[in-house]
Order: sequence, then structure tokens, then C-alpha cells
Amino acid sequence: MDFESIAKSAKKAALKIADLSADIKNKALLAIANNIEKNKTEIFAANKKDLTEAEGLVAKGELSKSTFNRLKLDENKMRDMLQGIRDVAALEDPVNKKLFVRELDEGLTLYKVSCPIGVLGIIFEARPDVIAQISSLAIKSANAVILKGGKESINTNKAILGIINETLDNIEGFPKNVLQQVFTRDDVAEMLKCDKYINLIIPRGGNKLVKFIKEKTKIPVLGHADGICHIFTDETADLDLAIKVIIDAKTQYPSACNSVETLLIHENFPETEKLLAALQLAEIKLVDNPDSWAFEHGDTTLAFKKVKNLDKAINHINTYGSGHTDSIITKNLENAEKFMNKVDSAGVYFNTSTRFADGFRYGFGAEVGISTNKTHARGPVGLEGLTIYKYKLIGNGHIVKDYVDGTKQFHHKDLH
Amino acid sequence: MDFESIAKSAKKAALKIADLSADIKNKALLAIANNIEKNKTEIFAANKKDLTEAEGLVAKGELSKSTFNRLKLDENKMRDMLQGIRDVAALEDPVNKKLFVRELDEGLTLYKVSCPIGVLGIIFEARPDVIAQISSLAIKSANAVILKGGKESINTNKAILGIINETLDNIEGFPKNVLQQVFTRDDVAEMLKCDKYINLIIPRGGNKLVKFIKEKTKIPVLGHADGICHIFTDETADLDLAIKVIIDAKTQYPSACNSVETLLIHENFPETEKLLAALQLAEIKLVDNPDSWAFEHGDTTLAFKKVKNLDKAINHINTYGSGHTDSIITKNLENAEKFMNKVDSAGVYFNTSTRFADGFRYGFGAEVGISTNKTHARGPVGLEGLTIYKYKLIGNGHIVKDYVDGTKQFHHKDLH
Repeated sequence: MDFESIAKSAKKAALKIADLSADIKNKALLAIANNIEKNKTEIFAANKKDLTEAEGLVAKGELSKSTFNRLKLDENKMRDMLQGIRDVAALEDPVNKKLFVRELDEGLTLYKVSCPIGVLGIIFEARPDVIAQISSLAIKSANAVILKGGKESINTNKAILGIINETLDNIEGFPKNVLQQVFTRDDVAEMLKCDKYINLIIPRGGNKLVKFIKEKTKIPVLGHADGICHIFTDETADLDLAIKVIIDAKTQYPSACNSVETLLIHENFPETEKLLAALQLAEIKLVDNPDSWAFEHGDTTLAFKKVKNLDKAINHINTYGSGHTDSIITKNLENAEKFMNKVDSAGVYFNTSTRFADGFRYGFGAEVGISTNKTHARGPVGLEGLTIYKYKLIGNGHIVKDYVDGTKQFHHKDLH
Repeated sequence: MDFESIAKSAKKAALKIADLSADIKNKALLAIANNIEKNKTEIFAANKKDLTEAEGLVAKGELSKSTFNRLKLDENKMRDMLQGIRDVAALEDPVNKKLFVRELDEGLTLYKVSCPIGVLGIIFEARPDVIAQISSLAIKSANAVILKGGKESINTNKAILGIINETLDNIEGFPKNVLQQVFTRDDVAEMLKCDKYINLIIPRGGNKLVKFIKEKTKIPVLGHADGICHIFTDETADLDLAIKVIIDAKTQYPSACNSVETLLIHENFPETEKLLAALQLAEIKLVDNPDSWAFEHGDTTLAFKKVKNLDKAINHINTYGSGHTDSIITKNLENAEKFMNKVDSAGVYFNTSTRFADGFRYGFGAEVGISTNKTHARGPVGLEGLTIYKYKLIGNGHIVKDYVDGTKQFHHKDLH
């Protein structure tokens, strides 16, 4: 099937799933988890096939060892994947929520109601557990999706989505074509052009992938390219607290997008030497060249720079940062307040590690990704980010003319 | 100044105005209204100049009579413009609102707080009152803007923005360059490419302008190109109610985007002849060719079509409509419910005129425009659509490691 036909059928599916009951969606999710569990041997076998091919590529130097590791689906990842699907089933239904009810006039009532966005295009790299995660989020939020996974995990992806779609075929009332998969680069090129049918693109992967996609499409893209996070150690910072937070933010998971990349230190902070020594002791590699100020290391390298004052720190972050997550360590409440108001990032933290920027830690239950956008959704994005709203207006022959000529007046009464 | 320097200074201004107090913003708005009122003779003189030039263009057939009329600023429009600015001052501050407060764990509290988007690019056609309206909305929502008005109203726009900026220069604490104006087509081309500094483009004008802009930029665009609204007269519709609502939706202001363009009639509706006769009596010009199904007439022309059932009506609307506003006339509650859930439009109405789709009528106080987007903001957009949010996380040395190794657990307690 050509891409446009796939996209067209996704749009049709989106219109059908839009008002599916929470019951059917949750039933589908639990059945999917059960069927994946029942057929895990088949999935492991498909994954084995991918791994064997990938091994050859690693040997030839065409695939990195870390991609190979992400590709591997073991019992632990399988368990987390199943738990993830069941967790999504247990979450509150994000659609058909009344966001407000307002009586505009007697007998004329306006409802703002959450609803799905429509068709999502998801482009993701190696990790095969993403396909189950995204599929369950799409079902729960009543969106149709077109998935394009990394070519390294093609057998695993086919096996997992095959089981998911087989399950959905047996759920009464569940529409066809809610979850579809494409496989080639040409499909991606078509997807990025397909603004007629696709409402939102979500890239999950490294910053090269995300930058490429943002560059090539006019469809809204939800995500982040870079995670250049900062910690500013203010003049009055507590040394022990600073050491503890910075070590966590840099070493707890260095390749995560919410790990700290640059440490700014107030030039009058009296314990800079002790702080830097402690970080080095924790095997953090300190560098102080300006080239690394707009660079995501992804390892235990940490750029550092002394700054004259709070304003200079804020200015540095707003200039070189990526609007992801930035933290101040201080005892000065006024400075903390100013930092959080003036730093233009999705997350602005006070005396805490940047690593907390995460949908699960924020209590969203499931995460679509982290957005550095300034519209629609910002920061860790849960199911809410896959919804929009519509306005329902219920009247009884109400006409605008009466309000224009003064026969009637709006009273705009919010009902709770 | 070249466009990039303007955009750069707008970004700087955006960072400064972001946390300006509501007091200063409201003081600025009231001072602007007073100064415009004081200097209205100057503004009328500038408008006279634009009108004289425009008259020549109308005579040569290079400008339409209706554009000429929109260009004219009279005492009535001036009064509405001043009232509009003062109304915006009286609205609730849309920024720095706590959207939720959640204790993630003891001493670790997450705040979701509304904040401005950043830099808006506004492109608008002839109407000179738009500049005051957009400027006040930008100030209230703490965004910087770059304005590009129609060339026909250049003198009026310069006069109005001149007075506004002179006023702002005298407000203590109000940052420079929050409101800037550009004038050429080249500036528009630069603006559409300037995704480094501009966060949102809002076009205000005809559908040609909006389509052109959506085509040419990767920056999010808030607005609507077409307003192809439908009314479906169901089998059980009340004849009198249908006549009243359809006449209002078509004739109360035919060139508005929320006017009805297509009437769908259930083939078993027993009073079709009477309905059509009544519409013709109201000087509505009925047409029934398929060419007009995806067409916004903007006058008293109304396409009509008989449909077999509710599903066909919904399908017609989702195929040919523009996702703006669509209404069902029926006595059947189940059909009304189904229509409102299945029609994929910003506004889905029941027994009421499509002309209600408007920010003032919805009670938003001020309106940026109407959006048919499926992300960020949909339907009539008030000040809320000019905001996004950030997450503030306040801890006391909290680190992620403790939660990963199980030393601590999140308790995710919402505080009210």
C-alpha cells in the first residue's frame, strides 16, 4: 500500500476511535498485555534474528555497541513493557473530560471537552519496547498512529505489532487501522510531507534524528533535539548539597537528555576549589572551553564556567541552553525566585537535580517524551499532550442577532 | 535595522517582559488608552492620508471597496478600540497562574505555572484597529511582538504604534522593544524563516493570506484559512427553529468565517420544501452543485444537499468542512450527541447558530482569532492561547539516585 493510502486509512480510523468508550480501550490494552505475555517466545525469537544481523553490523563497525544493547529485548525489558501497558490501562481516560462548562445565557451552554488530536506519526530508533509503549498511549488517548521504527529492530517490531493488531481484531467495536507500521526511508519522507492527514509528529531518538525531522516538516513536531541542562551554583550555595545534586545530575545516567552539561559557578562562591575537587573525585571530567557550552556530551564530561553574578548565569543559560531543564543551588530565596522566573526553560529547579525532568517522576503515569516546544506541550509530556479540545454548544434555537441588537445579553456563568 | 536584529531584540524584550508584574502591565494598558484618546486627531489625520491614497487605488480598480471601508477609522471604531484596550486591562492576568501544585515527595514540590510563549509574529491586513488590539493582548500576556500591517494602512499603523511606544517609554520598568513594526514583503519573508527567535505566527486576514503563510513557514501558525461551516437539518428538526437558526447563521454577517456555507438536509425531513422557501424569502441564494461544497462564499449564497442519514452528514462534514464550526438541528438527543462526538471540528453545536463561534460570545473577554489547528489552541482563542507553561521544582538537595535505588518513594500528592 502506498503511503497516502495508509495515511488516509489512519485518518478514517482516527475519526472512528475518537469516541470509543474507555471500557473498550482499557479492555483492548489488557488483552494486548496478556497476548504479548503469552507469545513472548515468538517475540524473543524475532528479536534474536535482529540481534544476529546487528552483531554482523557491530563487527563491521556499522552499528554502535550501545545501539546493539538498546536493541536487545530481555526478560526484564519484557516485564517492564507489560507493566507499562497495564499501567496505561489503569490511568484516567484523557479524552471526553469536561474542561469547563459555561452557561452563556439561559438555555445556551458551552462545554469545553478534551478530545484526541487525530493521526500521530511516530518515528523512533532501535528500542523495540517503544512500539508497545506508543501503541498503548495512542489507544488510551484515542489517536491513530503510523509507526516507523529503526530498521535494526524490524523483526521485533513486526512481531510485537502483529500480536497487538491480532488482539485488536478480536476486540468487538475496535476500529481497523488504528495502529499501522511503515518501514522505509521513503515512507518517512512521505510522512513528513503528509500534513493533510497527519496532525502531529513525535520523533523518539537521538538529536540528529529530531533535528532532521524538525527541519523537514511543516507538521507540528513534539519533542526535543538537545538537552543542554545547566546547574548554577550561587554565591550562597551549600557545598554538600551542591556536590550531591551535581554528581546525581551528571553521573546517575549520563546519556539521558536531562543530565547536566554545564556547571556555572558564582565567582564569589567561596568553596569552588572544594566543589571541583569533589566532582573530579566522582570521576566527572571537567572542561572549561567555550566550544562545549552549546554541546550535549552525553557522558561524564561537565563544562564549567565562573560567572560574575546571577544575571550573567541566567543570560548564559538563555543563550546557550536548549530550554530543557536548569537548576539553581542557593540559600538565597530571592535569587531562586528570580532564576525560576527568568530562565526560559521547560523545567526551572531550585536545590534539586535536573534528572527529575521525567513524566513518571512528575506523576503523569506514562510519558510520550520531553518537549522543548513553546506551544502545545512543554516539558515531560503525558497523555494530556496527545489531546486537544473541542467546544460543544447546546442551545434551543438561539441566534446571534438577538445579542447583537440587544434583545438578549450574555451572562457567562461558569457551572461546576 | 535588518530583520534579524529586530527579531533578536524582540527575543531579549520577551525575556524581560516575561515576569513583569500585572500592575505595571495594566498601568501601561490604561496609559496607552488615555494617550490614544488624547492624540486621536493625529491618528485620524494619518488615517485620512491612507484613505486619500486608497481612494486613488479604488478608482484605478486596484483596491476593493470593502477593503477601503475596513481601512477607515471613524469615531465609532476609535471608541471600540479604546474600550478594547481598557477591557484587556481588566481581564485576569493569564501568566504566573498555578495550573497545579504537586508534592512529589516530602520537601519536593512541583509547580506547573503559566508563562508567555515568547515572540509572536503578527501579520494582518487593512484594519488599523488590529494594531491596538494585538498590542494590548501581547502586553497582557507578556509576549513580545513583531507586527506587519497591510501597506494600505501604513500611516495609521505608524501613528498608533508611535503613540503606544511613546507611552511605554514613560512607564517605569517596562522593557524596550516589546512592540516593533516592520513594513515590507521582504520582512514577512524573513519573519517566516526566523524560527530561531519567533515562536508563533498569527495571521489575521483573508484565507489567501493565511494559506500563503501556513505554506511558507515551519513556525507554528495560529489561525484558520477557511471557515466552511455546516448546518445539518435532521429528520426530526423543528421547522421554525431550523429556519430561524439557518437565517441567522447565513445572513447576520455573511462574510464572517463562522457563517454557514452548506446546509445538509435529511432526505426524510418532511418539510424541506417549506424550509427552502423560507430561506429564499430571506434572500438566501440556494445552490446545489458539488463545486461549492468546499467553498467559502462569504455572501448570502448557501449550498444545500440532501443526505441519506446522520452518518452521511457527518461524513460529508468531515470530508468537505474546514474543522471550524458545524451545527445539527434535531429533536433527537442521541443524534445530537453522536453528531457532536463524531464531527471533527473546533465547534460542534446543537440547535444553535454557527455564528456563536467567537471569543467574546464564549466569554473570553478578548480574542486573538479562531484556530482550526489540532494542537495548542482550537476554536476561538483568548489570552490563554498566548501562553504556555513551565515546571518549577523546589527541593532541598533531592537526587534521583535515591528514587532509583529504592531508598525513597514518590508519593505524588496534589495540593490545592
